[in-house]
Amino acid sequence: MSPHPLASVIEAADRAISAEDFDSLLDFYAEDAILVVQPGLNAIGKAAIRRAFVAIADHFHHSLTVKQGDMVVLEGGGDSALVVMETRLEHAGSDGTKVAVTRQATYVFRKNPAGQWLCVIDNSYGTDLLKAPGPL
Amino acid sequence: MSPHPLASVIEAADRAISAEDFDSLLDFYAEDAILVVQPGLNAIGKAAIRRAFVAIADHFHHSLTVKQGDMVVLEGGGDSALVVMETRLEHAGSDGTKVAVTRQATYVFRKNPAGQWLCVIDNSYGTDLLKAPGPL
Repeated sequence: MSPHPLASVIEAADRAISAEDFDSLLDFYAEDAILVVQPGLNAIGKAAIRRAFVAIADHFHHSLTVKQGDMVVLEGGGDSALVVMETRLEHAGSDGTKVAVTRQATYVFRKNPAGQWLCVIDNSYGTDLLKAPGPL
Repeated sequence: MSPHPLASVIEAADRAISAEDFDSLLDFYAEDAILVVQPGLNAIGKAAIRRAFVAIADHFHHSLTVKQGDMVVLEGGGDSALVVMETRLEHAGSDGTKVAVTRQATYVFRKNPAGQWLCVIDNSYGTDLLKAPGPL
């Protein structure tokens, strides 16, 4: 089975995050998309999502790289798709050593009338949102 | 914070599953929705989803009940929402004792022009799809 077209879309978005190329990165999002920055803290809309990615890059001292692992794509009604995937983050720790984290992420995409897949919901925490303390 | 309107939608769908009221249940789905019956096996479209629920009810000897636990709703662009929630299944085991299973589910809904939320992607297995053996 050939990879779903969303595999290369997400790979390109990962490259843009790693390169801190936020102009290219924002092209993958719908205008009114939502990004879970951390459980309980969401950025809504392109301007807020850009600010969040700038803050994330600063937080990791510009060492963050993102790669994808296994993925499952469920294409449903209304040109919607749910992507369940392993997202592998690497960044420098406070002592300079490399820190690697794998999340089991959930992303929702919609295909626009031009046939382009745009991310409408970016939740890299997947079902771990249910473990978060406090109200969400 | 008041519950998201999707909480009562999903609660009503759960009641319909437990009551084997498939006519009411199918009203919650978009025409071209996708249901993950089990990892690697999807039902696509209302007719296939109905057949799957009939088979599931038979499989559990008409003892299945579904209730919701904690939930997080992420509303994104294009009238889409991702619901991450605990779904609690109970059914009779082969020896007649009660079996309880909790899944961390992911559901994608879309709001239609009339303002009604319809399920487009029903994946009660959440990110556990990544653990499944074999190609998906």
